[in-house]
Parts: sequence; structure tokens; C-alpha cells
Amino acid sequence: MTDSTGALAGALLMGDRRALARAITLVESGREDHRERAEELLDAVAVSDRQSLRIGLSGTPGAGKSTFIEAFGCMLTESGKRVAVLAVDPSSVRSGGSILGDKTRMERLSREPGAFIRPSPSQSHLGGIARRTKDAVALCEATGFDVVLIETVGVGQSETAVADMSDIFALLIAPGGGDELQGVKRGIMEIADLILVNKSDGDLKPAAGRTVADYSSALRLLKQRRGDPQDFPKAMPVSALEETGLREAWGEITALAKFRKTNGFWNERRSEQACRWFEDEVRRGLLRHFEADRKSETAMKALRSAVAEGTRAPGAAAREALSRLGRTAGS
Amino acid sequence: MTDSTGALAGALLMGDRRALARAITLVESGREDHRERAEELLDAVAVSDRQSLRIGLSGTPGAGKSTFIEAFGCMLTESGKRVAVLAVDPSSVRSGGSILGDKTRMERLSREPGAFIRPSPSQSHLGGIARRTKDAVALCEATGFDVVLIETVGVGQSETAVADMSDIFALLIAPGGGDELQGVKRGIMEIADLILVNKSDGDLKPAAGRTVADYSSALRLLKQRRGDPQDFPKAMPVSALEETGLREAWGEITALAKFRKTNGFWNERRSEQACRWFEDEVRRGLLRHFEADRKSETAMKALRSAVAEGTRAPGAAAREALSRLGRTAGS
Repeated sequence: MTDSTGALAGALLMGDRRALARAITLVESGREDHRERAEELLDAVAVSDRQSLRIGLSGTPGAGKSTFIEAFGCMLTESGKRVAVLAVDPSSVRSGGSILGDKTRMERLSREPGAFIRPSPSQSHLGGIARRTKDAVALCEATGFDVVLIETVGVGQSETAVADMSDIFALLIAPGGGDELQGVKRGIMEIADLILVNKSDGDLKPAAGRTVADYSSALRLLKQRRGDPQDFPKAMPVSALEETGLREAWGEITALAKFRKTNGFWNERRSEQACRWFEDEVRRGLLRHFEADRKSETAMKALRSAVAEGTRAPGAAAREALSRLGRTAGS
Repeated sequence: MTDSTGALAGALLMGDRRALARAITLVESGREDHRERAEELLDAVAVSDRQSLRIGLSGTPGAGKSTFIEAFGCMLTESGKRVAVLAVDPSSVRSGGSILGDKTRMERLSREPGAFIRPSPSQSHLGGIARRTKDAVALCEATGFDVVLIETVGVGQSETAVADMSDIFALLIAPGGGDELQGVKRGIMEIADLILVNKSDGDLKPAAGRTVADYSSALRLLKQRRGDPQDFPKAMPVSALEETGLREAWGEITALAKFRKTNGFWNERRSEQACRWFEDEVRRGLLRHFEADRKSETAMKALRSAVAEGTRAPGAAAREALSRLGRTAGS
């Protein structure tokens, strides 16, 4: 390890927020030498046995996610907790929105000394964003944050990606009409630990109550989850505006975390997540090396042409490519 | 090539439907020796320059997909066309439904001498189903079918998979209330060439007309597609029950196919699909060989434990696994 990587690791373990910002910039870099240093750094801080509570939070559009994170985050920092907010937003590259917007939309929270807010990495695809955010989560954890909140927008596969790097996954929704269970896909309900119905205030309070009841019924239809208390997943009302329900939500989150820590499910989930990540990285590396290989490039080129012209079947051509390269089992 | 594979290829090229059924059974087999024979067979028939019109068809639940395929298929066979119907149904394994159901639910079509109906392969995941269906499409094509209709249910990624093996992709929907554009995801509208609003008959006729108008407006908002006529993608009413609009739908499909053949987009799309398929197969083979490799198994085991215990970072452990195996560029 180079000295500077060691120094950076030391600063992180001492809780230095500016070092954390630099470290995240390092892991987000696309440069190969940066990547190597980033991996040394991540490996060096992996020995720290600090664990944050990693909360994944997805919000449907209009659910008031930024306002909720601001209110929820401030409640936590005011009670002495250190809170990091990271984002997984595959749309941020196109819209450019969240790069500039994250700090302004959470102005109060960003001024809290115990808070750290970082926008989504500006990679071009979800896989890259998710990998770099996982790295950032590990860095926040080493820096000693009590809570790492990973927010995402409810599009495509980003929710699954965030759930896969979280200990607890919560879904924030707005109160709706009768038919609104439609709006939340079943797959998301199956990974959510908590459904928070925001805007339970003023005129919307009765609608929020009905929405909580609707989701509570729907959640009861899901299969009981191994390792979880019977009353989870659950739905509950919150109001980011009036700052009500936030303590109750935090209470549910910590109760679930404690339950899972006691029965061993917490560590089991973390191990599984880390192994999956490791295996994904090996697979990716394997393919990357293959694609960068001149020998395979030449072999692929000729076969690809035959496939494009329709004179070779794709499957047989693939088999030939692999056997020509001797990339067979045991070789 | 073994004699029997050669004989099977010959029978296919002669248009033998029973040989086609046997050939599809061969490509669906999980046995490694069957797989090798299947690839020989596919490679042998790839030289045939026969091209079917491959139509992908997705239907939302309740849209009347089976009735539509029956009516549409019979119209085509009655006009002398040979029609194969294949299915990509990731739910068929769990429900067991479509295995028994396909022929009974299309009783009239299944009795037509020019028709061939095959249920979804009963693989456990979409990737496997899609691969085996692509193989079956190639076999139908070699057997000389004029039209290959690949149907799928509107869940998850199956529509994208079907669009990726089709020349033309159509979406069948039922007439709905005002707010129903919600029901069809934007991503699906972006890959559809034609939206068919079924049940444009009896009481539902006015609603079907409104739905066609709604989708027509929505489709106009999509970006004009390279290589397509200005008025595509388009929405139109059909009635599988009264057998109206079917000829018009066929007319639109063949007009679009002709347009794309003339401007070269048809062949370009087919080449791209074949190359993507080839590259996917190479990637899959590479990973499969890696996973079957004893040397990698041992190296992976120790590192996986360290990752599970949290003493090694997943990324750095993956890099070590790859370098230990010497699977680096150029090696």
C-alpha cells in the first residue's frame, strides 16, 4: 500500500469527513490506477469492525423523499447520531439534476455537523452506480457513521440494487386513491421492510390512514419472512412536513435491526451481500479481461461476421470461440 | 456431424413438422451431449437463407391473447401461410398452466395443417427460456414457416427478450378507462411497433376507439425511430371475437416489414440480434467454464470466506482471485 492510501485509511478511521469526501471521489474515478488505490483503501478499512445501520429508501415520484430525508436525518443528528446520505440515481446523468440539487434540496440537513450528503455517482449505467455506491457505503461505515441512508428513485432495477446494499429497506409513498396498490410493484413490496406513507397531515391525513390500511392488508398476504418478527413488513403513516411519525419509524427500524442481530439474520444477510458482490466482481473482471484480450478479439471478429451474415448459428459460433481460446474447464 | 443430426437437418429443410417437434425437444434438453447435437443442428440449418416473418406479441392479462392468436393464426393459415406459434412464459414452470393449456386454448388453430404450436420451454429462469425459444425460432425458420409468432406475458423482462428475437413487436391490450396508459410501461411502448386494442366489439367498441386514440397520442410523443415510416409505431382496434381488424393488422405488419427490408433496416436488426446472442453465449460459456474449474473453485473458496467474515473487501478479493488464476488480459 502506498503511504497516501495508508494515510487516507487512517484519516477515515479517525472519522475525518473531508477524507471521506476525497475517498469517495477516489472510488468513483474511472482511472485504472485510482481503481487499484481505491481497492487497497477499501481492503485496508475492511478490517474495521464498525457497522452502520444501512437504510435503503426508495420513494415513488411525488412522495416527498427529499423532505422526508431532511426531517428524518435532522431528527437523528439532533439526537447525536452521525448520518450519511448517499444516492443511487441512474437518471442523474441524463437530467444532471441531482448533482447540483442534493445539497440545496436538503439545506438544513447539509448544515448539520453530524451529517454527510453525497449525490449519486455520475456513471452511465446502474451497475456502475451501484458498485461505486457500495464502495461509498463501506467508506462511510469505516468513518464511523451510525446511519447510512441510501436513497433511490423508484425506477427499474435501482430498488433491488439498493436493497442489496442495505440492512433495512423502506419504501416512501404518498397517500392515494383507492386503486393505488397498483402503483407499487409486487416485487418492491416483497423486498420492503417498512412502507412509510408520507403526507399524513392536513387534508391528506384521512387518505394517508386509508393507504396505510390498504398496504397493511396487502402486506399480510405476503409470505412470512424467515428471520423476521410476525408483524413485519409493516406500513405506517409519517409526515415529513409536521415531523410526526419519524420517531416511530426510527423505532420500528431499530427494533427490526435488533431482532435480526439477535437471531443472527443480520450477519447472515451481510455475508450473503458481500459474497454476491465478490462473485459479481470476479465475473465482471473475467469478462473484462476476456474482452481486452487481443487473441480473443481476433477470434471473435471472424465469428461475429459469420453470425451477422447468418451463415453461422450464434450458439455454435460461441462454442467455437471458446474452444479456440482454450478457455475450457480445467485448462 | 453425426448421421442422425444430418438426417434431422435434412428433414427440417424439407419442411417436416414432426422433425421440427423432435428438433425443438433436442434444443430444450439440458443434457450436455444433446446440447452439442443441438448446436450442430442449428449450425447446419443456419446456411438456409429462409426467413420467416418473426412477430413478437405481448398481451396484458385479460387482453384476450389466446383468442387473438387463434383468430389471427387461422386467418393466416386460411390464406395459405404456414404459421408457428412459440411462447416465452417464465411463469409456466410455477403454474404448469401453459404446458397443458396451449393446444386446448387454441383448439381451432392447432387442427390447421399449416400451423405448429409449441408451449414455452419449462426452464427455471427467463434467460434459459429465451435462449431455447431463440433456437426454436431458428428451427421453425429453417422448416419454412412463413410466420413465427412468439407470444409472451407482460411480466418483467420477458417482453424485451421477445422483442430481441422478433422482426416486429406488437402489444395486445384491452380497452380501458381513461387512465389506463398507466397500465402499459413506457419501456414497452418504446419497443412496440404496433399496439392492438382488442375487444373492439359490442359494448366495448366505443371504449376501444377511445383507447386507440389515447395510445395514438401517446405514441406520437415518442421519438421518431430510425428506419421506420413516420406513422409507426401505431395503435389500431381489432376484435378477435368478431374477427375484424385482423387483416388490417396483418397489412400494417407486412407494410412495416417491407419498408424495413427496402431500407436495409431489417437485415441490420437481424444481424445485431444475432451478434448480441453470440456475445451473450460467449460470456455465458466463459463464466460456466470458470465456475466448473477446480483451480478457481479452491481459490474462490478461501477468498469468499474472508469476504463473508468481512475481513476482506469484495472488490480487492475479486482482484486477487483473478490475478491468482492468471486470468488476465493476454494470458
